[in-house]
Parts: sequence; structure tokens; C-alpha cells
Amino acid sequence: MLKEEFILSQERINPYIHNTPILTSETINEIIGCSVYFKCENFQKMGAFKMRGALNAIMQLTEDQRNRGVVTHSSGNFAQAVSLAARSLGVKAYIVMPINAPQVKKDAVKGYGGIITECESTIEAREKNAKIISNEKGATFLHPSNNLEVIIGQGTACMELLHEINDLDYVLAPVGGGGLIAGTALSALYFGKNCKVIGGEPMEADDAFRSLQSGKIENNTTTNTIADGLRTSLGDINFPIIKDNVDKIVRVTELEIVDAMKLIWERMKIIIEPSSAVAVAALIKDCDLFKNKKVGIIISGGNVDLQNLPF
Amino acid sequence: MLKEEFILSQERINPYIHNTPILTSETINEIIGCSVYFKCENFQKMGAFKMRGALNAIMQLTEDQRNRGVVTHSSGNFAQAVSLAARSLGVKAYIVMPINAPQVKKDAVKGYGGIITECESTIEAREKNAKIISNEKGATFLHPSNNLEVIIGQGTACMELLHEINDLDYVLAPVGGGGLIAGTALSALYFGKNCKVIGGEPMEADDAFRSLQSGKIENNTTTNTIADGLRTSLGDINFPIIKDNVDKIVRVTELEIVDAMKLIWERMKIIIEPSSAVAVAALIKDCDLFKNKKVGIIISGGNVDLQNLPF
Repeated sequence: MLKEEFILSQERINPYIHNTPILTSETINEIIGCSVYFKCENFQKMGAFKMRGALNAIMQLTEDQRNRGVVTHSSGNFAQAVSLAARSLGVKAYIVMPINAPQVKKDAVKGYGGIITECESTIEAREKNAKIISNEKGATFLHPSNNLEVIIGQGTACMELLHEINDLDYVLAPVGGGGLIAGTALSALYFGKNCKVIGGEPMEADDAFRSLQSGKIENNTTTNTIADGLRTSLGDINFPIIKDNVDKIVRVTELEIVDAMKLIWERMKIIIEPSSAVAVAALIKDCDLFKNKKVGIIISGGNVDLQNLPF
Repeated sequence: MLKEEFILSQERINPYIHNTPILTSETINEIIGCSVYFKCENFQKMGAFKMRGALNAIMQLTEDQRNRGVVTHSSGNFAQAVSLAARSLGVKAYIVMPINAPQVKKDAVKGYGGIITECESTIEAREKNAKIISNEKGATFLHPSNNLEVIIGQGTACMELLHEINDLDYVLAPVGGGGLIAGTALSALYFGKNCKVIGGEPMEADDAFRSLQSGKIENNTTTNTIADGLRTSLGDINFPIIKDNVDKIVRVTELEIVDAMKLIWERMKIIIEPSSAVAVAALIKDCDLFKNKKVGIIISGGNVDLQNLPF
């Protein structure tokens, strides 16, 4: 049963992750008009929730699979997560990155022991290179969001949150490739008490919003958003979970994202990345819905380039 | 007895402050080579430890004194601390601020209910205006650092830290006007187990370092440092405490301050102000001393102007 899988997953990855703190702020509660509980995955190892899913997937490989390593393509947090999770478990991690990925991200992956293969900056080139490595090395391909073990791993953040605050009325999370929101939705279903799940999504990459409207997976034609973790589209494993278990998706503008990010930096003194600010912006935008409620929010990560801030 | 005063002070102010979290970071421990415990006063109300001292001083006024209000001169965190502490207690706060103080700081003081009087940007003009208000309104003058009740209040941060981690070998704090380091030194004496206290000070405003060398209070001729909270000089109440109880003062350059600030932002995902980074920079600079030790550090505050960052 899937609920059991969450409990097993949390036990499995627990020695390798932080049970991140849950912060509150009177100022934020006053501004928004409800009680907000921030699950701070920005304090997670490598700075984002993605460590959870990567670990859960790699830890379920056979010894033979582990010996042959894992491969993924990513220019962001999942590349770092797979690198660090693999290193923690003594497994080789092959990371396909677009040649134009920021040096700071390549350095981070290398720092965590990931073996980088550079390729052209198209999804086709990335997939092709990952496939070649998978064939050559026998490495297991890990998808960053459309993989049930990854989804369950990501959902352990919400599970920990509900373990501490078990009567949340709502949980919010950002929506990118759909792994976090799907895992969060299942966690809320299994461990919440009638806890509804709301997604935050950039207006400029609103594929999930449109997918829920049309009932099938829609793609983004442009992804002109500062929330670089949310530019990807849903997959066939996470979409059905999202369709059945996510109450609604709130779309926010670029200005709303930056304002929300600045609010949290200034008032809570914690560093959140733009993708996390998308969920905060959704909370602010739809604040009438949350009036006097208890609301959890997954602060997905804190990896920002300090040399390139939007304010 | 002074030790009793710390216990009473902590009980007195406790309902009005946060018992701020103590954070740790494996990455930082690896970099520095010791176990570091960050007492996060950047998460304190109004974003800095100064709330503690302001509250402790105001709460010990007579009812008659409270009715007539309090006055201070400050362009920084103490102005906000007195405003918010006074408002929390239903007391009027008159704040003398230099006319060229940043609008963002004036707005913050107003936001906390402080009544601002603007004056010229000299220490003489500030003191004169505070004196006039004190005479006219009968308001009690509060010095930001050279006041025993303020010193004891500031020391409650270290007291809370030692209550959680009672076998610290060292505690570090930044040195500005001397209130925090004096309170920290007394706390370490009363509540630590042979816990040594080290101050961090900007090379560009190293009056405390020179004062410990000469044995008398030295002033700064220039204060060209980004650590705007540390430009002030010691006073006759805190200096004897510092002289007797602070093990040494480590001076750091402007570059070391900015590098330390960036390290903490990037690795710990928390926002610390330059004055707090001075203590972190001292920890890094003198890391041989701390090798394999348990070291506490008072992260004094997190109030920065995001529009004007040094990186």
C-alpha cells in the first residue's frame, strides 16, 4: 500500500537528510491573516527538498544496479541532489548538463562528486546523452519528477510537517515537473485530516494549471520565469496523482514572485529561492481562502546566485 | 548578586522575545574544523538582539517613569528595539535620529511606533536633542550599550545558548559599543564551564582592541566599515567588564567580513547583517584556536538593505 511506502521511505532516507525545522512568523501571520507553518527545505542538505527523492530512488536499487551507478539530466537542484545522494551511498552519479549551464551549478555538482557530461541545451540532446551513458555504463536513469520513488521521497517533507502540525487545513507547494506537488498531495491524503493541497505556479509557465483544466498534460511553449525550478512540464506518473488530489493551482506573476521572495528574506531572515517564493506568492494572492486557517507551506529550496538577485 | 539579575532578566523579558533557535551546519563545521552553534538573534523580534536589552531596561522603570516615556538616539537597531519594546509595554518612545539616516530605517522606527526627532548628524547634536526631550517630557534616557540593565538583557542570548549547549569552550560575539560582548562575557562567566569569550571587531573600527591593549577607553578616529552596528566606542560601564572577562579581540578586514557574510548566506541560507559576519570572520580567521572545540557564536542581527548588498 502506498501509505506504507511513505513511512518506509521516511525511515530509509532519515539517516541521510535533515528533518528540517518548521518556522513561523507573527509578522507574516498578521500580513496574510492566517497561521502559516514554513517547512524549511531550504535548510535541507544541498539546499533543497530534491535530496529526499534522489535518496529514496537510489536506496531502492539492487546492489548490482548501485555498482553501475545512476544517470540524470538536469541543470538545477536535481543534479546536485543526485550527486550528493549517490556520494552518500557510495554510488557513481553521471550528470548530463547543458553546456550553457551556469558555472556555479557545474561547480556545485562537481563539488558533490557528480561526473558531468556536457551537451547542447535542448531536451533532445539531454535525453540522448543520458541514454548513451545509461547504455554504456549500465547506469540507472533517474527522472527528476516523473518517478514514483522520487515522488514519494519528495512527499516525506509534507509528512514530517503533518507529523508536527497534524491539523493543517491547507498545504501549499510550488509546481514544476510535478514531483513535489504529487508527493505532497499523497502525504496530505494519508497523514492529514481533510488537509487540502494547493499548488503555486508561475503565470509564465502555467502548464499544470492548463493541464488540470483540459484534463490532459499540456506543455509550456515559453518558460520566461525567474522560478528556474518550475520551467518543466508534468509527466504521466505524477499527473494522475495531481489531477485527483490537488485542490487547485494558483498562478502568480513575476512581480508577485519577486515581492514574495523579498518579503520572506526581509521579515523571516531566511533565504528562499524564486521557485519557493511562487508558493508564498500564491498564499498571499489567495489569502481570503486561508483566512484564520492553519496553512503549511513547503519552502522547497534556498539555492540562489547572490551575484544575480532580482532586487 | 549579578548572576541572579541575569536569571530575573530572562524571566522578565521572556514573554516579549523569541527564545531564538540554535542552528548548526555540517558544512561550516567542516570548513572551520570545529563544532559551531549559531545563536540566531537575526530571528529575534525586530531582527536583532537589541530587543533584549531595551526590554530589560524599560521593564525596570517605575510606573511614573513609564508614563513619561523613554528617549534614545540611534540610527540603527537600537532605535527600532526601543520603539518596539516600548510599544509592547505601552510606553512612549522618543527616538533622535540623524537627518541623513536612511529612509528605510526611519520607516522601520515609525512602523514600531517610535516618535522621531531629526537632528544634525553629529554625536553632539544627537546627545543635545536627547537631553532636551528628556528634560521637556521627563522621558528616561536609554543608552544603547553603556547601561547595566541593557548589558544584562543582551547577555540573556548567551545565557539561553549555554542553557542548551552547556559545555561550550568558546563564545564569540561582535564588538561595537560593548553592550553585547560585556553581557555575553558575564553570561559565560556565570553559566558556562570555563567558557572563554572572544570578540570580533572590524580592523576599521578597532577601538576595543586598542582599549584592551592600552588599558583605557580608546576612540575611533575613522569608522570606515560596512559593519554599521560596530562603529561606536566602549563606555565606562561596559569597559571594565570587557577588560576582566573577554579573552581576546580578533580584528578582521572588510573583505573578510563580506566573505563571511556570503559564506553564511550561501551555506546556511540565513540572512545575517555585516555586524554579525564580523564574529563569523573572526572565527574563520582564528580557526586554529578553535580546532575540535565547541564554539558558540551570537548571530547578532539580520537587518540588511537588500537594495544595497556588498555582493
